[in-house]
Amino acid sequence: MINVSIAGGTGYTAGELLRILLRHPEVNIESVISTTSAGTPVAEMHRDLLGETDLLFSDRFINPDVIFLCLGHGLSRAFLQENEIPENCRVIDLGNDFRNEPIFGNREFVFGLCELNREQICRAGNVANPGCFATTIMLALLPLAAKNLLQDEVHVHAITGSTGAGKKPGATTHFSYRDNNISVYKPFTHQHLEEIGHTLLAAGNDQLPQINFVPMRGDFTRGIFASIYTKWDGSLSEADMVRFYKEYYQSSPFVFVSDEPISLKEVVNTNKCLLHIEFHNGYIHITSITDNLVKGASGQAVQNMNLMFGLDETTGLRLKGNAF
Amino acid sequence: MINVSIAGGTGYTAGELLRILLRHPEVNIESVISTTSAGTPVAEMHRDLLGETDLLFSDRFINPDVIFLCLGHGLSRAFLQENEIPENCRVIDLGNDFRNEPIFGNREFVFGLCELNREQICRAGNVANPGCFATTIMLALLPLAAKNLLQDEVHVHAITGSTGAGKKPGATTHFSYRDNNISVYKPFTHQHLEEIGHTLLAAGNDQLPQINFVPMRGDFTRGIFASIYTKWDGSLSEADMVRFYKEYYQSSPFVFVSDEPISLKEVVNTNKCLLHIEFHNGYIHITSITDNLVKGASGQAVQNMNLMFGLDETTGLRLKGNAF
Amino acid sequence: MINVSIAGGTGYTAGELLRILLRHPEVNIESVISTTSAGTPVAEMHRDLLGETDLLFSDRFINPDVIFLCLGHGLSRAFLQENEIPENCRVIDLGNDFRNEPIFGNREFVFGLCELNREQICRAGNVANPGCFATTIMLALLPLAAKNLLQDEVHVHAITGSTGAGKKPGATTHFSYRDNNISVYKPFTHQHLEEIGHTLLAAGNDQLPQINFVPMRGDFTRGIFASIYTKWDGSLSEADMVRFYKEYYQSSPFVFVSDEPISLKEVVNTNKCLLHIEFHNGYIHITSITDNLVKGASGQAVQNMNLMFGLDETTGLRLKGNAF
Amino acid sequence: MINVSIAGGTGYTAGELLRILLRHPEVNIESVISTTSAGTPVAEMHRDLLGETDLLFSDRFINPDVIFLCLGHGLSRAFLQENEIPENCRVIDLGNDFRNEPIFGNREFVFGLCELNREQICRAGNVANPGCFATTIMLALLPLAAKNLLQDEVHVHAITGSTGAGKKPGATTHFSYRDNNISVYKPFTHQHLEEIGHTLLAAGNDQLPQINFVPMRGDFTRGIFASIYTKWDGSLSEADMVRFYKEYYQSSPFVFVSDEPISLKEVVNTNKCLLHIEFHNGYIHITSITDNLVKGASGQAVQNMNLMFGLDETTGLRLKGNAF
Repeated sequence: MINVSIAGGTGYTAGELLRILLRHPEVNIESVISTTSAGTPVAEMHRDLLGETDLLFSDRFINPDVIFLCLGHGLSRAFLQENEIPENCRVIDLGNDFRNEPIFGNREFVFGLCELNREQICRAGNVANPGCFATTIMLALLPLAAKNLLQDEVHVHAITGSTGAGKKPGATTHFSYRDNNISVYKPFTHQHLEEIGHTLLAAGNDQLPQINFVPMRGDFTRGIFASIYTKWDGSLSEADMVRFYKEYYQSSPFVFVSDEPISLKEVVNTNKCLLHIEFHNGYIHITSITDNLVKGASGQAVQNMNLMFGLDETTGLRLKGNAF
Repeated sequence: MINVSIAGGTGYTAGELLRILLRHPEVNIESVISTTSAGTPVAEMHRDLLGETDLLFSDRFINPDVIFLCLGHGLSRAFLQENEIPENCRVIDLGNDFRNEPIFGNREFVFGLCELNREQICRAGNVANPGCFATTIMLALLPLAAKNLLQDEVHVHAITGSTGAGKKPGATTHFSYRDNNISVYKPFTHQHLEEIGHTLLAAGNDQLPQINFVPMRGDFTRGIFASIYTKWDGSLSEADMVRFYKEYYQSSPFVFVSDEPISLKEVVNTNKCLLHIEFHNGYIHITSITDNLVKGASGQAVQNMNLMFGLDETTGLRLKGNAF
Repeated sequence: MINVSIAGGTGYTAGELLRILLRHPEVNIESVISTTSAGTPVAEMHRDLLGETDLLFSDRFINPDVIFLCLGHGLSRAFLQENEIPENCRVIDLGNDFRNEPIFGNREFVFGLCELNREQICRAGNVANPGCFATTIMLALLPLAAKNLLQDEVHVHAITGSTGAGKKPGATTHFSYRDNNISVYKPFTHQHLEEIGHTLLAAGNDQLPQINFVPMRGDFTRGIFASIYTKWDGSLSEADMVRFYKEYYQSSPFVFVSDEPISLKEVVNTNKCLLHIEFHNGYIHITSITDNLVKGASGQAVQNMNLMFGLDETTGLRLKGNAF
Repeated sequence: MINVSIAGGTGYTAGELLRILLRHPEVNIESVISTTSAGTPVAEMHRDLLGETDLLFSDRFINPDVIFLCLGHGLSRAFLQENEIPENCRVIDLGNDFRNEPIFGNREFVFGLCELNREQICRAGNVANPGCFATTIMLALLPLAAKNLLQDEVHVHAITGSTGAGKKPGATTHFSYRDNNISVYKPFTHQHLEEIGHTLLAAGNDQLPQINFVPMRGDFTRGIFASIYTKWDGSLSEADMVRFYKEYYQSSPFVFVSDEPISLKEVVNTNKCLLHIEFHNGYIHITSITDNLVKGASGQAVQNMNLMFGLDETTGLRLKGNAF
């Protein structure tokens, strides 16, 4: 059994991690850390866990094999500074602290996009878990980058559920505002652009394409729907491109290419990413969907853990979808 | 023209009042008071008003004919204490301060349920605007109370939109919590029970029936749907009861009895209340729907103003519904 | 391995059953029957199953150990008439054909409310799976019935998600109608009242209480929220009643009593039922929540199968909740 | 008073037209035509109109000054063929039959984008009302086209509410499918592209830019949110561009440029279009929002009628927004 500790235990990604790990056959959750809620039952905060765990929040870890950092962006570095993590304890960071600057003391962080870095993750001591928008967009572009085919601008609109904005209530997550509403935020400047760029280069593209990325706030809770296109010279036909994508992801158990158009709820509450490809107007158009809390955060983190500890990549992650 | 001032100008009911009054042919809005936002444009806060008004929030009223108090519950009394309202200026309070204790100094507040107190409101210097749940429930029961027919317990479930909880974000108005969710709050103890009781007695019932009221939080923004039943001796047939209700509301321009079952969106964004009546199992079952921000708050407040100033009751209130 | 066949394979409950059974460690799905879609991939209809199964719809079963009937209400009887089911093949009917008339030829159907009839189900050859509203309401009332405490009328409002209305599109499941809308249907006359009544008597109540049941259509997809109250003489205190409920469900792995008020999404996408109990005004008030497709249909059906085949009741049913 | 007839009276756009026209001070609705519902009350179908009209559907017009065609796309031409419209009766077609082929017998249709063709509409006998996506996108691009600045490809993602898909229920308007879901349809091939192209040329652009348009289905009922960008050489600064847009729409009473980012509900239930402009990465990025049923259909049709009959353009169209 893998002894697991979770730091930042009251937030959304920690809750989702708990939902997954409580059903994971190889995991023992030794501690869920919350300095503000220490001593109270975990199920009081994550109320859907009633009847599933008697765990209490604690103010420290004990002797974990791996610690998941579910802290706010920028707080992971501080946590590592303030807490002496045993050298042999692995770290999986769900924040963005180590995605682009992957060094902390002796610890080096592998970028945890399993579909690209599977082998390095298997040997990694530390993993920086990718962002949710980044995951959804990168999985759509990886095969093209691997063939060095991203030679022109990439156009991206992606719409996200409210859980991506975290638990703290605010003006743009107020139900009265958000219900039946749509808006754009951080157009062309979203912070995930940097990790997307690194990844495309690492995948084999010889240059960093300009990515015009317009993130949108959707009036739903879970999921990211990305619509992406870039110029295409037609050197592969649509059918061949679809075949190439399917081959590329052949050994990736959570990424699938759909021959039919896709809709967001086909992946909600699962660790899957679905892709669909069409050619139009001299462009290749790719739609890509994930659940931001699962494949975009906690599910992917468990997938990384599975790889790091030599388990089958899918252990504990064959989740029943929501569908509706 | 009626010179209007609005206190508590940044909240939801003030916004809705502005939406209505900016289109009201007999009204001039002289001031929208917000101590925290004084000097900034009203349309910056109530963003749907862009292009419709250049008003700025101010920190005081000037010389209004009527002032609407859109303050938090309990704050109206404080406002009147701290601000010297000119004697001839009328007051319409949208809070609950004067619904059950209708006296402040020389000012006496008439309970502003137009369908019951139309004549007194026409002569009133001050009006306490009814609560949204109370309005929806009272309009369903008034005809029975008028005939002294409420001789047994009354059973009420009513489900409300999120705008009823006001603008301040919190756990139960967080989109991630509320979307696709249902919950109960304050069962059997909601604060509107008191004004409902007074009103039924005032309407002619000789005793205060026990009202078992379970309020529910709905996953929509506007509207209240109430389902109400009480024992019925059958002395009137269903058809006669429907006829009696229609007659009772004959001269009320915003209350209608539907022969078909009703659904909430039939009144959203209007000042209407729809009722539907069926007899089952020895019970009379009444469903009642309103828009909590319009008939349940700001629309009803304008209806009261119209009556107080001798205008046609419907002036400025024939609003296009949302329907969808 | 249990060989499973599913009749009526294209509908919502069949889809949910597939989602569960494809992850069930002791099940082999031998056939998914659809006369209209025979030959096409199951994942083309239930699109969230892409990548999870290559099954095709077929027009017949082969040699199943159990067949699940996911047909429209009234069609199960016809299916058994038209298809010769091998004698040793068990039948679990998700429709309402055998809930109140439990005999078909040699086959006798046990009412599949595991929390009441666990032992009979373990020995049953055929099970009539309870209705979704019925399940949610019965689980709230069983402990009272077991003590013969239902001596007065029971008042029930329960609000259901759209999936309860099935897959066929219609006026009241049109998104433009249903979004942000609430309505009542079949007040006091819902067809689940009969099985609720039988069950309360079977549980130990000496009389059939009058149940005033108002079903409501909610603007969400999954789940039922029931609010139930009945007069209470106070012979047990609230704390003692809560304790009694917890004891009553001690050995039921999916029913939990919450000390805090509950909200619907705490059970969505799980096989759980949560209850919460408060005393008010001489009434005991119980709120009860389930996912109509899981505990209210396909999850409960699998729970029944587990019992019938000697498996642990929870096998394949420890589902990650949706929470949001 | 203008005598109005409405053909295709049971659909969504006819309902919205009725909502508006019943409050229009200069209109008398002489007939609402529905061959299938003739003789039944209009309020039975458009149920929010209960209490507002006693009109019955009829099977013919009498002597209208103007007839609105609210028929399915392709059916307007057939209606004109089958019905002899008096020569002096004006026609406003809400379908797409005459947007790109504006001739029927002696009748010539002016393209009814008031902000471009105001003068021609004032003199028009017949108007082809623009499509909802087209309206939202054209209003974002008109000022650039007027200066011949659309010299590169235009990138558009626009997400629409379910009412855009009409009243007939189907798979993609089923609540269980659509709630909390997002999907793409007709990418790069939407039928509104043609009228957008014509309009940009008519506005002054010397060439037809390639428009890459990805329409999306949103999980809300009303409104279109468009996000649009095209390369920009920087010859005008962002501030100057915003100023130019404001000047361009100075005399258009329903189009406003917001200095702050916009969200869809700021226009829902109104005839307004809001625009917001930012420069990023060598692109001009424009967001544009309308209510598809109002400015995108029936409101714009009334605006056209107002112009055709010499009324103030805003008569009957200063609608209270929904805001929430």
